[in-house]
Amino acid sequence: MDYSSFSEAYLALADPIKEVGTTANEVIKEAAPTSEELEQAIATGLFTANNIWMMLATALVFIMHLGFAGVEAGFGQAKNTVNILFKNPLTPIIGILTFFVCGFGLMYPGFDTPGWFDFGGWFLTLPDNGNSVAYADGGYTYWTDFLFQAMFAATAATIVSGAVAERIKITSYLVFTLIFVGLVYPIVGSWKWGGGALDEMGFYDFAGSTLVHSVGGWAALAGIILLGPRKGKFSKGKTNDLPGSNVSLAVIGVFLLWLGWFGFNGGSVLSGDPASTSFVLLTTSLAACAGGLGGGLTAYLVNKRLDLGMVLNGILAGLVGITAGADVINPAAALLVGVIAGVLCVFGALALNKLKLDDVVGAIPVHLVCGVWGTLAVGIFSTNPEHTLWIQLKGVAICGLAAFVGAFAIFFVLKKLFGIRVSEQHEVEGLDSHEHGMRGYTIVYDE
Amino acid sequence: MDYSSFSEAYLALADPIKEVGTTANEVIKEAAPTSEELEQAIATGLFTANNIWMMLATALVFIMHLGFAGVEAGFGQAKNTVNILFKNPLTPIIGILTFFVCGFGLMYPGFDTPGWFDFGGWFLTLPDNGNSVAYADGGYTYWTDFLFQAMFAATAATIVSGAVAERIKITSYLVFTLIFVGLVYPIVGSWKWGGGALDEMGFYDFAGSTLVHSVGGWAALAGIILLGPRKGKFSKGKTNDLPGSNVSLAVIGVFLLWLGWFGFNGGSVLSGDPASTSFVLLTTSLAACAGGLGGGLTAYLVNKRLDLGMVLNGILAGLVGITAGADVINPAAALLVGVIAGVLCVFGALALNKLKLDDVVGAIPVHLVCGVWGTLAVGIFSTNPEHTLWIQLKGVAICGLAAFVGAFAIFFVLKKLFGIRVSEQHEVEGLDSHEHGMRGYTIVYDE
Amino acid sequence: MDYSSFSEAYLALADPIKEVGTTANEVIKEAAPTSEELEQAIATGLFTANNIWMMLATALVFIMHLGFAGVEAGFGQAKNTVNILFKNPLTPIIGILTFFVCGFGLMYPGFDTPGWFDFGGWFLTLPDNGNSVAYADGGYTYWTDFLFQAMFAATAATIVSGAVAERIKITSYLVFTLIFVGLVYPIVGSWKWGGGALDEMGFYDFAGSTLVHSVGGWAALAGIILLGPRKGKFSKGKTNDLPGSNVSLAVIGVFLLWLGWFGFNGGSVLSGDPASTSFVLLTTSLAACAGGLGGGLTAYLVNKRLDLGMVLNGILAGLVGITAGADVINPAAALLVGVIAGVLCVFGALALNKLKLDDVVGAIPVHLVCGVWGTLAVGIFSTNPEHTLWIQLKGVAICGLAAFVGAFAIFFVLKKLFGIRVSEQHEVEGLDSHEHGMRGYTIVYDE
Repeated sequence: MDYSSFSEAYLALADPIKEVGTTANEVIKEAAPTSEELEQAIATGLFTANNIWMMLATALVFIMHLGFAGVEAGFGQAKNTVNILFKNPLTPIIGILTFFVCGFGLMYPGFDTPGWFDFGGWFLTLPDNGNSVAYADGGYTYWTDFLFQAMFAATAATIVSGAVAERIKITSYLVFTLIFVGLVYPIVGSWKWGGGALDEMGFYDFAGSTLVHSVGGWAALAGIILLGPRKGKFSKGKTNDLPGSNVSLAVIGVFLLWLGWFGFNGGSVLSGDPASTSFVLLTTSLAACAGGLGGGLTAYLVNKRLDLGMVLNGILAGLVGITAGADVINPAAALLVGVIAGVLCVFGALALNKLKLDDVVGAIPVHLVCGVWGTLAVGIFSTNPEHTLWIQLKGVAICGLAAFVGAFAIFFVLKKLFGIRVSEQHEVEGLDSHEHGMRGYTIVYDE
Repeated sequence: MDYSSFSEAYLALADPIKEVGTTANEVIKEAAPTSEELEQAIATGLFTANNIWMMLATALVFIMHLGFAGVEAGFGQAKNTVNILFKNPLTPIIGILTFFVCGFGLMYPGFDTPGWFDFGGWFLTLPDNGNSVAYADGGYTYWTDFLFQAMFAATAATIVSGAVAERIKITSYLVFTLIFVGLVYPIVGSWKWGGGALDEMGFYDFAGSTLVHSVGGWAALAGIILLGPRKGKFSKGKTNDLPGSNVSLAVIGVFLLWLGWFGFNGGSVLSGDPASTSFVLLTTSLAACAGGLGGGLTAYLVNKRLDLGMVLNGILAGLVGITAGADVINPAAALLVGVIAGVLCVFGALALNKLKLDDVVGAIPVHLVCGVWGTLAVGIFSTNPEHTLWIQLKGVAICGLAAFVGAFAIFFVLKKLFGIRVSEQHEVEGLDSHEHGMRGYTIVYDE
Repeated sequence: MDYSSFSEAYLALADPIKEVGTTANEVIKEAAPTSEELEQAIATGLFTANNIWMMLATALVFIMHLGFAGVEAGFGQAKNTVNILFKNPLTPIIGILTFFVCGFGLMYPGFDTPGWFDFGGWFLTLPDNGNSVAYADGGYTYWTDFLFQAMFAATAATIVSGAVAERIKITSYLVFTLIFVGLVYPIVGSWKWGGGALDEMGFYDFAGSTLVHSVGGWAALAGIILLGPRKGKFSKGKTNDLPGSNVSLAVIGVFLLWLGWFGFNGGSVLSGDPASTSFVLLTTSLAACAGGLGGGLTAYLVNKRLDLGMVLNGILAGLVGITAGADVINPAAALLVGVIAGVLCVFGALALNKLKLDDVVGAIPVHLVCGVWGTLAVGIFSTNPEHTLWIQLKGVAICGLAAFVGAFAIFFVLKKLFGIRVSEQHEVEGLDSHEHGMRGYTIVYDE
């Protein structure tokens, strides 16, 4: 079936699913199966298990979008809650739809054409073997492949959302997301995961410390540079705290992100292989723990207070850090990667303040700084001697340059064309009542 | 084992689990397995994978109840939060228990007796092969079957809860739920999923746009007609906004419902078949995205504001819409089904206001209107030529009539017997302090 | 690979993952596979499915920590929200890390040395066959084993957190958790699950009514005895209600705990065996429903109000109650176990008030009282005649004594050394502003 022609597609009446022999009893349907039939049945069983893992990993990555929503709305101010939350469901919507239209074709153009750019086609062009064990070595179907990757794409965009919150013009944000997820993310991603030039070079990024997290982080940096800080964040040489509205929401968010990372990293094995998936979950969990500890302790030593925000961001920092090498770094090294990520995220946040860059949720210390750190850590700790610090550094630099320049260009053009910042009055009085005509909370009792 | 006699059941001391050969090593325990033993081992492997998928789908449908709780408490007023949340855990409790007592036996009376009514027995009467590959073609066990279906049953009931909130007498609501889930839902469901008359007729409803969502929606409509609108909702010919208490909670709810739909639709494949399950997840996700976009854009064109509520309900509308045909509608058509659902849900809400019908969360536009739309869409877009618009329309009408009349009758009798609406004083001052003696939020600091 | 030497470990450069033949196509890679190769491929398929179930069960148990966070922050007062939520992410962090360092080696010292104490080694010492079907009969890998058990360990600690909230000194709590999870929990656990003395005796505790829940509950009891009640909880012979800050959060918590129990009990089968896992989910769900109903009805009869808190705690009580015997108690008996648990949890709460013991979230009625009840219920209802009430009682007493004495001793020493209670001023004015320098909620609009 060919979905490349949109108008034909929804008129196509052929059965969209070619059955592959579904039920346990059907597997052995012959009275006396041949050896080949037995082999096919065995392969179907493993294919089914693998695909189940990948579908559930997809669901877990999906729920990360609720995690981001929680973190952003929780750390944002109450007067902007609706505005922040308006972006969160629209980000995966835009992400999945643009990935359907062109992103998937850009990111995975076909493995025979390594390089810097190629295009595999519009919409989903089902390969003949897309739902058989012949596709992706039986790790998952073509449909699962698309959904899993589309969820990843949306993640890169949502990282930006947290940094630029509370003063970005929402229409400009949505247009940015459209272009960034539809073009920049998949083209950069194709260089490694699409079998492109960086892959040829030997660059390694297991689940996207660079391709997802630092790419999103660079875009966030471009955004906050062009936007400027929120009113009142920096005044008279001092950094002011603009307290988050709802800490519980941020905690819900971080727990859901941690949960989602079981799928983000676990699913990046691209099959349900017991040894690989469970090893990846182990290193991921250890790094998250070490990150939370590192962030919390560092904040305590630096600021002398039990800073919940830094425990939470430390957890995320550890998770971002281990993402590039979760399958090639041993458990003890995973602890080290995590704890360093936690420390880096505290100092990253302090550095941003020094630079008068206002990042509402700490997206840049977490996703950019620790994304870079995690990718370099592969060059230091990987059990595979082919992974070198030099190649990792090159990959980080190339992807970072592309993402930053791409995002900066989009934001810059949008700024010139429509503006990217809300009016001062709207910002001060809150975006919710002005732009959405509603309030995030009406929970004070009138008596 | 026979659980049909309740008093005997809990005295039964036989091992409730007949082992089927669980571990990987046991599969091949013979030194030289015969061909038949190999086949059995292969079937066990696929059976295990299938059943895992179905159990996790069950867990995902379960978490939809938290999703509904979030939407309802989020869109409801703060003074009624406890009352709303009191219903949400009790709905699956009542749903699962009534389904255990009689619902399962009513809905799946056995496939040899198609028609309009039959009864398969009280409690769970384990078929001899209920935990072997002989049951349900190895797609899942009897226990999984029950739990998955019980979660569905509870979903139909919880749809009502959101519409009638903030003024229904809670005891009457609970009695309604008991009868609706225990009798109306399973009898209507048996007509299609139990192999009854509608199934014979060729009616198609993959995962319940009609059998779950519009059935719940019709009951909600009956409820709000008999209840009347909340005080102050309609006054002097105007519709007044009674703002929701907590938008974050509504967003949590919608994300969890979307997540839950991975199990709702994905599990309706009734096995872990890679092609079918992943295809269903694809169409489901695309329709959700299109619905959110359609709802949001329509609301912007109609009301000139960025209406988060309509993005959220649009997502749910798209999900409800694709539910009837998620396995037989191609991806491009799924986008169309979703976007139309999103549009319909905005106009449905406007129409309800014109009719002075007060539906707190928009359950009727989402579940009734888009449930009907999705079922008819199968007649338009299905890749299976046997699915015709005419048969779909008949099924929609028959199920709708039964659900509406059934629900109306129950509410009507309850109204005559006990009343179904709280006193005006309780409604105005809030149900929480009067009926539950506690407050939903005590988060204002006294200083 | 040997991780027992920490300094060597992170320098180890050997590939941490021994491949086991991952993809469906690899399974049958030979042109003409021998019978032995076919057998190996079949075993790999089932191993993969089993391990997927166990990894997802691990993820579900992990999310219980968010569930506990919701219950605790929801039932706690707003002035202490940050303090409560500071503990919740740190509990799994400490739990997983201590279990990595020594807990796992203490709890599972090797099955050839039953008794009261043994030690299997520091860190994770990968057995040679840890990621092959030879480990744990192909139910899961060594890495999955560790993670699943580490999540359990953290659960026992978090139970304490809810009881002692709002007045415990956070540093003392964290030190307590470190010692309790690192030493007390795994040593007690080794007596049954590590193949120790209680296991030899015939004591049965399927998923931890005693080993996890009552062990945590006894520690909570020790804590609140030594801490004393919150200011104002008991005054002039009366028990005062200190209303929870955010009921929605508590509801989110309970739903997530219920969800997590799918993994807590379902994963305790230690494989994906269809019959066992689905049967366990059935009894677990039925007991949860019965518990919620029992708790709600009892509270209504006793207090004449529709007490949401008691529905929620009743659900948890039912879940705790069925945990010891979920695989050996039939569905009808599961209902009975659940409903009694629901009733017990209401009277348990009343009894605590009589004793002037202040348990913020009702952790003791739920986890201690119903943990004991559930363990004894195995002696009454188990379908296995070897499970007797007498042996169950012995196990409950031995574990309870050890947990209570152990926890009491730790808290007592901490009290003498550093103090375990915050200053009266901090308690009255709230821990958040004093100890964390931030507020849980800033959602009142200033206009």
